[in-house]
Order: sequence, then C-alpha cells, then structure tokens
Amino acid sequence: MKSGNLFLKLCICVLSLCAFQTNLLSQVNPQTWGKEPYVSPEVHPDHSVTFRISTPAAKEVLLSTSWLSGKNNKMTKDSTGMWSITVDPLEPELYGYSFLVDGLKVLDPANLQIKRDYVILENLFLIPGKQADLYAVNDINHGTLSKVWYDSKTLGIKRRLSVYTPYGYEGGKDNYPVLYLLHGVGGDENAWPELGRACQILDNLIAQGKVKPMIVVMPNGHVNQQAAAGDGPAGFIRPAFGADVFNGQFEKSFMPDIVSFIESHFRAKTDKTNRAIAGLSMGGMHTLTIANMNPGKFDYIGLFSPATPPTLDNRNGNSEFYNQVDSETSLKALKKSGYKVYWIGCGKDDFLYQNLATFKKALDNNQLKYTYRESTGGHTWENWRLYLSEFTPLLFR
Amino acid sequence: MKSGNLFLKLCICVLSLCAFQTNLLSQVNPQTWGKEPYVSPEVHPDHSVTFRISTPAAKEVLLSTSWLSGKNNKMTKDSTGMWSITVDPLEPELYGYSFLVDGLKVLDPANLQIKRDYVILENLFLIPGKQADLYAVNDINHGTLSKVWYDSKTLGIKRRLSVYTPYGYEGGKDNYPVLYLLHGVGGDENAWPELGRACQILDNLIAQGKVKPMIVVMPNGHVNQQAAAGDGPAGFIRPAFGADVFNGQFEKSFMPDIVSFIESHFRAKTDKTNRAIAGLSMGGMHTLTIANMNPGKFDYIGLFSPATPPTLDNRNGNSEFYNQVDSETSLKALKKSGYKVYWIGCGKDDFLYQNLATFKKALDNNQLKYTYRESTGGHTWENWRLYLSEFTPLLFR
Repeated sequence: MKSGNLFLKLCICVLSLCAFQTNLLSQVNPQTWGKEPYVSPEVHPDHSVTFRISTPAAKEVLLSTSWLSGKNNKMTKDSTGMWSITVDPLEPELYGYSFLVDGLKVLDPANLQIKRDYVILENLFLIPGKQADLYAVNDINHGTLSKVWYDSKTLGIKRRLSVYTPYGYEGGKDNYPVLYLLHGVGGDENAWPELGRACQILDNLIAQGKVKPMIVVMPNGHVNQQAAAGDGPAGFIRPAFGADVFNGQFEKSFMPDIVSFIESHFRAKTDKTNRAIAGLSMGGMHTLTIANMNPGKFDYIGLFSPATPPTLDNRNGNSEFYNQVDSETSLKALKKSGYKVYWIGCGKDDFLYQNLATFKKALDNNQLKYTYRESTGGHTWENWRLYLSEFTPLLFR
Repeated sequence: MKSGNLFLKLCICVLSLCAFQTNLLSQVNPQTWGKEPYVSPEVHPDHSVTFRISTPAAKEVLLSTSWLSGKNNKMTKDSTGMWSITVDPLEPELYGYSFLVDGLKVLDPANLQIKRDYVILENLFLIPGKQADLYAVNDINHGTLSKVWYDSKTLGIKRRLSVYTPYGYEGGKDNYPVLYLLHGVGGDENAWPELGRACQILDNLIAQGKVKPMIVVMPNGHVNQQAAAGDGPAGFIRPAFGADVFNGQFEKSFMPDIVSFIESHFRAKTDKTNRAIAGLSMGGMHTLTIANMNPGKFDYIGLFSPATPPTLDNRNGNSEFYNQVDSETSLKALKKSGYKVYWIGCGKDDFLYQNLATFKKALDNNQLKYTYRESTGGHTWENWRLYLSEFTPLLFR
C-alpha cells in the first residue's frame, strides 16, 4: 500500500503545519484526519438542525443564538460526553450561532465557517431555499471581489475598499455603472461582502437577468480606520468606533477620494445615470448626506434602515455640516437636480423607525418622491440582504 | 448628553446584529462595549507574551501551540476566574495558538484574528521585527488581492484563484511578469494570501525596491475543489483531500486553463523570461512537474520543501504520467530549453529531506544547475514565508 503510505506522509506533512502539536496529535488519527468525527450543525431535510459539541467535562452547554430567543437552548449530554440540541425547522436564511460552555463563549469546533460582526464572532450556516438561495455560491458565472487600496487625499491616509466587478470585467473592454454600498457603525469594507453576501446576491441576480452587470464599491466608512481591523497598518487590533462616527469626514472625502479613484482606476461609467449609492444604518445617513450634498451626482439612492438627521439630536458637534443635509435648501436642490429612484427600506421593529418617519415627512413636505418598503423585523442583516436584493434590480434602467 | 444617547443607540443598533441575544447582552455593558475587557495576547516590550482567558468554571486550561513544545503550557487562575500564562520572549514571527479548556479546544475570545490551515483554526499574533516585518501591513503602497473565477475547460468546472496585482496595476497600462505560486496538500487558493502573507511580503519587498512589481497568481491545486471550502458551490463544507492528490489533473490543466486565462484576462507579459512558478510541498511537486513537462515556458522555478518524484513511490496509480517527470528525456529537454533560476529550499528537519536529496542527485547527474538553500526547521509556513521572501528578489532580472 505505497500510495497509502504516501497519503499518510502527506497527512503528517500538513499536520506539521501545526508542528506536531502534542495536544492535536493525540486527538488525531491520520486515517480519519480531515474527516469529520461528527457533524455540526447538521441540517436535516425538514430544515430542523442538530448542533453538537463534544466536551465531557462541561456542566452546562447552551446554544447561543439570536433566532432562538425565548425558546429552550439547553443542550443535553450523552454517555460519550457529546452535547446536542435539535431545533425546530428554520426558514431559509443565513444564520449565526455559538455555544456557551459553562459560561464561556465557544465557537463550534466542527464548523470552519466564521463571521465577524464588529467584535462578535459566530459560526455560520445556511438553510437553503427561497431568498436564501441568493446568498449561496451557485454554479453560475461569478464576478471578482478585490481588496484595493487608495490614497485618501482628504484624510491624508491610505485606505482600503472592497470592489465587486461583474463576470466579464477582467479581460473585457466595457464600462460599467457603479453602485456605492455603505455599511453600518459596526462594519468596515468587509461587512457587505461577508455579512451582506453582496457578491453572491449580485452574481445570482445578474445570472437570473434581474440585475444589470455593475461594479459595486464597498468602502470603509470609519475614517479612523485605514482598513478593517487586522488588515491595516494598525495591526491585529480590535475595531473601536467613537469620535469618528458622524464627524462629517467620511461624507466630505467621498466624492474627491473614493468616487474619483474608482472612476480613474476602473472601467466605470461616470455620469449621474450610471451612479447609485446606498447604505445601511450609519451608511444610510452617509448615503443621504452624500446624495443631498451632491445634487445631480446620483440617479439612484437607497436608504436601508437608515439613521436620519433626526437621529443626530445635536449633530454630534457637527451641526453646521449636518444641519445643511435636510435643510430646505438642500432638499430643494436635490429635487431640482432630479433622480430616478429614492428607495427607503425599514423593518417595523427597527429602533430607528420613528426617526425615519420624521425624515420621510421632511421629504413629503418638499415633494421629494421616494419608494418606501416596510418589512418585518428590525435592524438586522436579514433585512439588509433582502433590501439589497430588492434595490439592485431597480438600478440603471 | 444627547450625543452619548446617540452613541448608545448606535451600540444597541449594532448589538441588534446579534438581535438582543440574551446571553450576550447580559455580558455587555454598552458603555464599554467594543472595548476590550482584557487584552489577550499581550505582547510585552521584551516580546514575552501573556495569554488570558476568563472562564471561572474551568478546572484546567492549557495554552495550545506548536512553538511551546516541551515547555510548560499550564495556565493559572486568579481569584476572578481569569486564567493566564506568560511565555518567554519570542523571536519575530507570525504565531498561532488556541486554548484547551478542560480538554475542549477553544479559540481566544479576546482575539479576533483567526487563521484556517486545512481543518485547523488558530488565533494569530505577530511578534514584530526583522523578517516578521515583511509579514506586517506597513504604511506603504499596497497591491490588490482579487478572488477571480475562471472556466477550467480541462476539468469542466468553474474554479477560483487568488490574484495579487502590484500597486499601480489598476488604472495603469503596463504589462507585468507573473509568478504562479502553488500551495501544499492542506491548502487552497486562500493559503498563500492568508497563511503565507504573500501580499504583505510582495508589498514590502516591492516598496523596498528588492522585488520587481509582478502579478502573483495563487490557484487552487485540489482538482476536487471549485474553491476553498465554504467559498464554492459545494457550500459550507469542510475540505477533504484524497484521490485528487497527484492524479496528474492539476498539472495537465495548468497551461491550457490557468496560464491562458491569466494571460488573456490580465495585463501579463507572456514570454518565458516573464513567467515564474514556485510551490511548497505538494505544490513543489506540481511546480517541478509543470516546469519539466513544459520546457521553455518558465525561466524561474522555485521548489519550497517540495515533494519530489521519489516521494511518489508508485506514482499513485499515475505512473505513466509521473514517470516522465524526472525521466532522462524530460530533464534533458528542460536543460536544453534553458532557464535562469532553479531554486530549491528545504529545512534540515523536513521529513521530505532525504527524498529531496535523491531528486537533487538526478538533477546533478543531468547537469541541471540549481541553487540550494537549506534552512533550519521543518515543513512549516515559517520556512515557506522565508523562502518566498528570498526567491522573489531573484525573479525577472
């Protein structure tokens, strides 16, 4: 069995990546190494899900999730020390979870898929079907995701952004319209690609002919960051937002730094009818500020569960700047410049719902037309993924 | 304190990303949320390092690492339930670790940086200085990292690869030389960018003027994968290699699928003097196979801790193909076609060391010139990062 011998050697070869770590080696049998000793999570045909973790010494293990709220999350132990719980069938969606082992937050050792939302890590799994099929990597043509650095002359630093270019961009000659897609206060340039599944949503909707091929630019909205935590010169830090939030600098740097970089470095169409901007929460406020302060630059504007001017009770020490955003003068200028789509989405349970109602009234009072989409739920990525999939088909028509 | 109120709202807003998860909320004070309750790992000025984890219920907590082999790894608990250990000063390098809490492998809850090596997740930290400064994101010009899909006509599937383009590529007009950089048996198209810090090494050496700007193409060497586990149509699976290893398909698909895609979709120089290929372990065997079977296509060949033909005792059922690789005919054809650099690096403790000696003898017997670099250590990413930083300065001169 020489090929078996080869295989064993290769196993050892990879094992040596962790350099014969005593603890690991004692757990690993090279014959089964790389195979799952057990499956977690196990999605059953009826979309009920079993979660498992082997920890014989534990006294109490809980399944820690947002979507099990109020229901039993206590796992039970079998005679081998394997803890498990099976939850009722779930709707198609992308879900996160972790375990609490005697009070300690533990990621699922059997699940390699991890997402980071601000400072919270969770394991991921997908219940397929319906809307959630847009979040899967399907066997279709795929665009490219790039991490690109640009010089922010306004801020005096190098910064990183994520760029989705549609299938056909590399090696092609066409110019494409551009959607600028902004994240919320917990995010960075990785948020829409990772938590928002933006590339999968675009790939799928473009393949279905429902969305026009476009470039999607996902910058970092925190001016105190050069790149997502761990990806910039600050090193392996934890992210922390603070005084940079709503200090006006991101909005001021947007057109001269980001839009001009994209339009000079990518094959982007550069007129108003080929520019869209959308954002969630803090990024919704960024979006409406940038759109209102630059009338005639964007034909498509999308606010997803947006923070709105009424949210900024004292405009965070930047009253002079932010007071202009929803002033009669600004709103009239925006109306005069014209736009094709002004789209607002919000969940019924969103804590920003009331403030948004006040802002919509200001739009109404100035006869600014918009589409309002009210969904269930609150301030969640479930809603933002949904809004992206509903907003993008309206663009560049 | 209206801005404080806003800040609290925004905190809640992000917290709602995990949708008011009871367990988390009870742990989180919005005033300090996002700030570190404690630091782990803490790198001290003398490069000793303190690791911490708060888990009052645990009976035994170990620091699980490869680099602490043989030394004390037992952590001690203080009166608050915080476990800690301080290790002696470490050499500059990128390090991984995790914890073993009563036998359960646990990632550090205070460290957001995680790497995946095949099916093993570990937290990351960097001890700065010397060689390790090449692995840091420094405040210099940066290239772009892209995840690109191509049609593999040979294999009949769509596949993904990673592409590094140097600073100036986007928006520029120049054509660049190309290094094809191949991973080992545990890897995929994410291995060199993530574990190998290839983009940081290239950025830093290009900024220092030691390496010529080049495109670096990092494909997936497992023909049973369309993309890294979790990133392809197979969904959120665990990776598993097997019959695909050394079945000859990757090598056969390389020129018609990957090289032709890159040269038609990127601004690549397409002659022998502007093509380099290098790989580690299994990727070293891929490299020498591709180079030997395509004489006159690559002027620069790099083998990092390579598997070599003697490793393939029975050529894994593909004797006909692999027997050609180191045949007299192939080696003579390679010699006749000529090349500028044939570079081999290996650690003294590598388990492939003896097989490599046999292969070098075959090169010697055929008067094929090569540079041999012997380093300390074994079959590790520490060596492969080092080799990349020594090999790339030799290219395209």
